[in-house]
Parts: sequence; structure tokens; C-alpha cells
Amino acid sequence: MTKSGMKVGFIGLGIMGAPMALNLMKAGHMMFVQTRSKVPAELVDGGATLCTSAEEVAKRADVIITMLPDTSNVEDVLFGARGVAVGLKPALGGNGQPKLVIDMSSISPMATKKMAERIHALGGEYLDAPVSGGEVGAKAASLTIMVGGLDSSFERARPLLEALGKNITHVGGHGDGQTTKVANQIIVALNIEAVAEALLFASKAGADPAKVRQALMGGFAASRILEVHGERMVKRSFNPGFRIALHQKDLGLALQGAREMGLSLPHTASAAQLMQVCAAHGLAGLDHSALCRSLEIMAGHEIAAGDVTISA
Amino acid sequence: MTKSGMKVGFIGLGIMGAPMALNLMKAGHMMFVQTRSKVPAELVDGGATLCTSAEEVAKRADVIITMLPDTSNVEDVLFGARGVAVGLKPALGGNGQPKLVIDMSSISPMATKKMAERIHALGGEYLDAPVSGGEVGAKAASLTIMVGGLDSSFERARPLLEALGKNITHVGGHGDGQTTKVANQIIVALNIEAVAEALLFASKAGADPAKVRQALMGGFAASRILEVHGERMVKRSFNPGFRIALHQKDLGLALQGAREMGLSLPHTASAAQLMQVCAAHGLAGLDHSALCRSLEIMAGHEIAAGDVTISA
Repeated sequence: MTKSGMKVGFIGLGIMGAPMALNLMKAGHMMFVQTRSKVPAELVDGGATLCTSAEEVAKRADVIITMLPDTSNVEDVLFGARGVAVGLKPALGGNGQPKLVIDMSSISPMATKKMAERIHALGGEYLDAPVSGGEVGAKAASLTIMVGGLDSSFERARPLLEALGKNITHVGGHGDGQTTKVANQIIVALNIEAVAEALLFASKAGADPAKVRQALMGGFAASRILEVHGERMVKRSFNPGFRIALHQKDLGLALQGAREMGLSLPHTASAAQLMQVCAAHGLAGLDHSALCRSLEIMAGHEIAAGDVTISA
Repeated sequence: MTKSGMKVGFIGLGIMGAPMALNLMKAGHMMFVQTRSKVPAELVDGGATLCTSAEEVAKRADVIITMLPDTSNVEDVLFGARGVAVGLKPALGGNGQPKLVIDMSSISPMATKKMAERIHALGGEYLDAPVSGGEVGAKAASLTIMVGGLDSSFERARPLLEALGKNITHVGGHGDGQTTKVANQIIVALNIEAVAEALLFASKAGADPAKVRQALMGGFAASRILEVHGERMVKRSFNPGFRIALHQKDLGLALQGAREMGLSLPHTASAAQLMQVCAAHGLAGLDHSALCRSLEIMAGHEIAAGDVTISA
């Protein structure tokens, strides 16, 4: 442990959480972990302390990170029986500072605002810090991290976040990190759908979709999605990557939030339906670039020839 | 006139055609022009020959360029009374090569294939070479040009196209240039709509859309549209640029083509309807980034505060 090491709790050691906790341990932090899944041997061997509840994690650590599947899981872990909130008595850590909860799950921005208020009311601090970059980014400590919360909390968290990711932005107040993540997932889904419509039109009209994609890269149609996911559509390379099933969850957050706010997101809603077309055909385990399959199925025509492999 | 100067006909001297013809004249070509609008003094002063019909242009020039508003205009100019086809007798030019028709309008890919066949059947050659880059690109000779047709025709046309644009791609056979242009306009429209949904969600959720846009630029949501049009939405800078009314025409080509081919383009169809929401509110003269106004009107909430200026 280095001099700068903190007492860090980590709750949720799934596909994303396990490598993230490991990266924090490697950065010299004292780890207190709790999870429903199996704790990786590497964490135990490295000296991480296994806790039996979120309450215990919150009692023993000064910063408590959560990395969980969905909004309800975070609510349970924070405010359920033997949850983090119970462990925040007292809310001041051994370092004399308020205990800091950092939720790195991708969950509802609206629920996040309420949970942040409750943690602050208990004397703790809260940051929402969802990530993008997937399992690869989690392992390589190259995640993009979008953060909402107080400036002072963000500065305290910075050394931890820098051990986990590269592109770290403090967007604004409580919930703004989650809001940014939702906005990101809206654009990514709709840009994939846009590229699919364009390449399908081109292919059906008899043009070479690979050449069309290349020509479009030079102009206003240029995007990371045209570059990466457009190439996947042309090469029929649909191994994930980021699975349609996960993107469906994120669009669900967008549509639920939009409904709560009284906001119409017509193309997000339609993209969610097109993902269900994919799911109906057993394709939800494919990379989200395979969203093009929904349009192809509807058209009875494929952007390019080639097998569609499923490795779900 | 330089040694490499060709006898170039130019039909259609509108907002785009006039500066393009001027650039060709400046490059040392002998110009034969015909238009329904007024011929710019600079062309006359520079020695361009005014013709009274498309037929005369085709008789006197070796390469005939058309730059017209829509499919029916090109069909009329090529195959109507006193049209280009009549002037293609004989179809060999003074240089001993088949006369070359280059249609640089943005029109139907399907109609283009038929017209190309008819011109070739008459002994001429045909390229479709639609552009993007607008009036600014036309004046600066920096247009993006997407070309369909024979390799040999493309090589003959290259010196002319290089006097008009910078990013010139020979995509494939007849019609593939128009197909690529349609694909481009589909992606641009849908990426604008995607950015609008994301920034509207973020703004309504209380986040700063400028900061959210900045955070998103680093990841998979990155695109030219997020960069340029996203900034316009945040800064409420809707002076064209490329007008919604023109983009409506292009989406019409996409939807008409899709219908002819038996292809469903759900988001293109929806974007066309959202553009009509803009038109219903007198906004069709604004830059196409103002497509966000349709969603804002539906939501009763704006991405950012600020006036929406109309300079139609």
C-alpha cells in the first residue's frame, strides 16, 4: 500500500466490477469487498477483505464504490437491510472526512438524484460515475467515466477514478453523470440505426456498401459509429463488443426517464423496438451493431453477404 | 485557355451551378452555358458562350454538366424537346471521344440508372456526380463529390471534378454516386435527430447540454454532427448552412427510392415527418440542425435558452 492508499469498499464484483476492484488494489488501496457472485482469487490473494454485507463495507471503508446491474440493485444495497446507509453511522470516516459513496453502475438519473440527497442527508457524500468502455476498458483501466456531484467529492475521488479510466469528465451536479451516460447510449443506438438504414439503402440499390462507407467517412456523415460499427455491418462481424441486451437496458433507462419528465424521444423508442426485433430472432447476445439485422429482416435483404455468428 | 482546356457545357446556373461554372472557366475550360435563371456577368465577361437550349450546349461542348433542382428537371433537360439527347447526334465530340454527360444534381438513383443507360445507348457516356458542401463548398471549389459510372468516364472527368471539389470518390457504376449521396443525407439527418434527442434529454434532466456534448465527444457518440450541429443546438445558431427544406427533398429521394425497392427505413421516414413539424412552425428555412426544434416543440422545453433567428 502506498502512502496515498485509501480504504476503498467495492460492492458488486461482476464482469465489470471485478477487474475494476483489482485495478484499485493494484493502485495501492486497501480493499473491502462484497458481492453476490464469486470473489476472484486474485483479489483475495492480494489482501482484499471480504465483508458479509454492504453495511460492513460502509463501516470499514472511507469510500464505497457500487457497480451493480440496475437501479433497484443500487437502491437495495444503499438503503436496504444491512445496507450502506446503516453503515454510515457514523458518517465520518477514519480520515475525518464524510464517507463517500460512488455509484459507477448505469442507472436512472432521476433515482440517482434522490439517492444522492438521502446519502448527503445522512452526512455522507455521493457521486454518480457511470462508465463506458465495457469489459475491455475495465480490465485495461481505460474506461470513460462521466461524473455528477460536488466539486470537492470529485477531487477526493479523482485518484480512484484515474486508476479505473482515462477519459474522466465532471459533468455537473448529482445525477448529471447518469444523464450523460443515457445521452451517450441514445446517440450510439441511433447512430447505429442511421448507419444501418444508409448502408442497407446503398446495398439494396446495388452499390458496394464498403465503398459507400469509405466515401461517407470524409464528410458530415463521419462518426465513430460509421467507422467501427459500419465496418462490422459490412464485414458481418457481430461478436460482442457491447451486447444488444445491455443496450436494451440503457434505452429502457432513457425511455423511463423521458416518461417521468414528460418528453417524447421518438427514435429512441423506435430503436428499442428494433432491438426487440433482434431479440425475437435470438440475436440479443450479438454486438449492438447487429441492430442492422432488424432492418435486414424487415427488408429481406442483407447489407453484405456472410454468416452472422452468435457467441452469446 | 490552357492546353488541357476542354469544351464544357454547363446547364443550370443556380446558387450551386453559377460558382461551379465559374471555377471551371477559371481552370481554363471553354464554357457553353444555358440556364433558366440569369447568367452571372462574370461568366459572360470571362468569355462563356450563352446557348439557347440544352440541345445547343450538347452540340457545341464535349462534356455536358447538369446542375438542376430535381429528377424531373434533369429528365427534361436530357430527354425533352431541344434537350441534350437531341444534341448528341452525332454523339462523338470534336475530340473523337463520346460526349460525356455529368449530372451533378442530387436526384433519384433509380432514375439515374435509366438515364445513364439511355445516354450510353445514344453513343454518349454518363456519370452521376452529386456533391455535398453547399454554396460555400461550390464557391471555394471544396465540394465532396460522389461519382458513379465507368472508370474511363471518371478518368476523363477527373480534371473537371478536381476544379470543383476536393474529396472526390469513384464509388461504383451508374447511379452509385446518387446512392451514396442519399446514404449521406440519411445519416446526417438521423445523426442530427439523435443528438437532438440526447441533448434534449440531458437538458430536461437538468444537466448542462454544453458540458454533456463535450463529455460525449470523447467516446463512441462522437461524430461530425455532434461536433458541428450539436454546438449549433446549444448556441441556438440556426442560420443556414443547409436548410431543412433542402434536406426534406433529399429524404424524399431516400423514401421514394426505398419504396421502389421495397425497403423500410423507419427512422428516415420519421425524420421526414419531424422536418414537417419544423415546416409547420415556419422553420424550414433554418439550418437542418434546427430539426431539434421539432422535438423541443413536442416537449415544451428547449435544449438551451436563446433566440431562434430565421433568415430564410
